[in-house]
Amino acid sequence: MINKKSNTINFKNKLAKFSDYWSPKVVAEMNDYQFKLVKIRGEFVWHEHKDTDETFIVFKGEMKIELRDRTIRLAEGEMAVVPKGIQHKPSATEECHIMVIEPRGVINTGESDSDLAAANDVWV
Amino acid sequence: MINKKSNTINFKNKLAKFSDYWSPKVVAEMNDYQFKLVKIRGEFVWHEHKDTDETFIVFKGEMKIELRDRTIRLAEGEMAVVPKGIQHKPSATEECHIMVIEPRGVINTGESDSDLAAANDVWV
Repeated sequence: MINKKSNTINFKNKLAKFSDYWSPKVVAEMNDYQFKLVKIRGEFVWHEHKDTDETFIVFKGEMKIELRDRTIRLAEGEMAVVPKGIQHKPSATEECHIMVIEPRGVINTGESDSDLAAANDVWV
Repeated sequence: MINKKSNTINFKNKLAKFSDYWSPKVVAEMNDYQFKLVKIRGEFVWHEHKDTDETFIVFKGEMKIELRDRTIRLAEGEMAVVPKGIQHKPSATEECHIMVIEPRGVINTGESDSDLAAANDVWV
């Protein structure tokens, strides 16, 4: 973990280092929270995180976060927080670059079994 | 707190709603953390937060965060995390728009007495 704190993190430079979708890459930690860059395209699975809220910030493109009763739409320069326990399904028609903020150890697919479950704690 | 969660937050729209410097405005909460937009210009005071890391993300302009042994420089699209207990002094030569992420209740001037201590929990 040497030097992973208090360095300048440039989002574009970090995003240029990977191209896989739905595979979060940690770029920083604050206390027990992680900042993860993710490239997304297509539809993710319905899931929820029972113990934590989850923050989405869009850096490039547009995404949707479907909830059971409505849809959150996010474009570049926008963010939203999905409250804990709320089922949601992220998706993006075109490639979209986002940052997710949540406690270390949270699984991207939450309580759902899915092939989209990604390895945790992968840094870029 | 109705509707403060899971809404779309547009940073530019929120930033257009205030013009005072060094006066953080809360735009969202995730668990016990707050996302605060701040316009900064000039020099802040040396301070530290004994119990928490603090995250800075720059949306517009450039800022410096002086540490006792070096200086973090941040431009648009960059972030850094100042570890807890580390003395730091933010500054910006020209107006700079940033987002600070830290636990609810953290005082912007930390352990320091300063006229720059801002009211907490002001939403925009």
